[in-house]
Amino acid sequence: MSGWVVVAGLGPGAEDLVTPEVRAALDQATDIVGYIPYVARIAPRPGLRLHSSDNRVELDRARHALEMAAQGLRVVIVSSGDPGVFAMASALFEQVEASPEAAQTEIRILPGITAMLAAAARVGAPLGHDFCAINLSDNLKPFALVEHRLRHAARGDFAMAFYNPRSKARPHQFARVLDILREECGPDRLIIFARAVSTAQEAVQVVTLDQATPEMADMRTVVLVGNSATRRTGDWVYTPRGATLSGVTP
Amino acid sequence: MSGWVVVAGLGPGAEDLVTPEVRAALDQATDIVGYIPYVARIAPRPGLRLHSSDNRVELDRARHALEMAAQGLRVVIVSSGDPGVFAMASALFEQVEASPEAAQTEIRILPGITAMLAAAARVGAPLGHDFCAINLSDNLKPFALVEHRLRHAARGDFAMAFYNPRSKARPHQFARVLDILREECGPDRLIIFARAVSTAQEAVQVVTLDQATPEMADMRTVVLVGNSATRRTGDWVYTPRGATLSGVTP
Repeated sequence: MSGWVVVAGLGPGAEDLVTPEVRAALDQATDIVGYIPYVARIAPRPGLRLHSSDNRVELDRARHALEMAAQGLRVVIVSSGDPGVFAMASALFEQVEASPEAAQTEIRILPGITAMLAAAARVGAPLGHDFCAINLSDNLKPFALVEHRLRHAARGDFAMAFYNPRSKARPHQFARVLDILREECGPDRLIIFARAVSTAQEAVQVVTLDQATPEMADMRTVVLVGNSATRRTGDWVYTPRGATLSGVTP
Repeated sequence: MSGWVVVAGLGPGAEDLVTPEVRAALDQATDIVGYIPYVARIAPRPGLRLHSSDNRVELDRARHALEMAAQGLRVVIVSSGDPGVFAMASALFEQVEASPEAAQTEIRILPGITAMLAAAARVGAPLGHDFCAINLSDNLKPFALVEHRLRHAARGDFAMAFYNPRSKARPHQFARVLDILREECGPDRLIIFARAVSTAQEAVQVVTLDQATPEMADMRTVVLVGNSATRRTGDWVYTPRGATLSGVTP
């Protein structure tokens, strides 16, 4: 029997946001590989081996998955959300590129519900017009690049979604991000802090930029920022479908 | 029994990309509302009324759904992909804002697998770093705004995903989009045309910008453009997780 590697998106947390396609891959797997809290979401069963590893060892994890597939095992690398959005799919292909023997491995990437879309759905439709997704971690890129992208996104009047906004290792950068946003978007722009959406720990807060503080985010939070037309109606936040040039800086 | 409105994302087409959460809402519905091809994806059953409508009547459709919910019916508005990405969720809230009596309606937005993530998964991980999603239709916004956003996205070295790239009503604009991209990103940037991903009509093409022609896209195509580091490895296309300032225009 020939082995394979699947990179599967488990969605934001709730079981009923896991696609049947991903469920079927998990049912066929001999081995599950992933970051500790994501592997913890997989129900044990006879014949299924669970391999948890810590954060920041993505390439080792990918190599391990490829090696097991070469031995004929059926390996699912689990990601939270969607595997192609700041998750394991890119790390796997970096490792494939570095391992000529991996070129023959059967690989499939299975999409999932990414955090920003689960969060947006919870509050209404804040990403209902053109938007950007930005990873605020400077683990693998200079913070100056984050700043450039923030300014381009703001000047293009995009709505924005931020992944990995804040961690213990870099508590001060998110304060700087909020300063840049206030400078570019003004104090009244709506910002949404959506933590652990669809889990028992879910907590969602909608405020304006002048009310936003760094402590409103942690590593389980996805942060959404509206565009210049994003507004509230009742308890909802949405971005209208129509737009004009008024919010853009050429 | 009190009525409700759910806006549900059906994903890109395949049944096994419909979440269990959406499936449960469809099972509880008395009425399904939506654009003709999306309603056609719903299996008929006794007690379920199907209300199809044409494109560009989103507000009428939302009003109809809210009126039925006020009568105690359980209404699902179906969207392709994710309902919050260039789909019905924003139109519903525009209508809620215009209808004070709708403020009491129970509303839920259920996320789905959006086309760009299904397309990205098919070719690898082209959106594996910061990216933008842009609706190229100028139905509700001036084309000049599309151009501004394209240039900001390119100068921020974002990967990009384009929805509604081309229609019979505006056959020439996508040629202009390709010209802008070539100007900003150069001839060698990778571009992906992913049509009807996960359906029997699926067709995916990966080329460089200098090889791209407007005819490669239609309204069923989502177009992805890599950032300056996006590359091929074997048959795959991926964007590395790391990035530098080299691709950015301040």
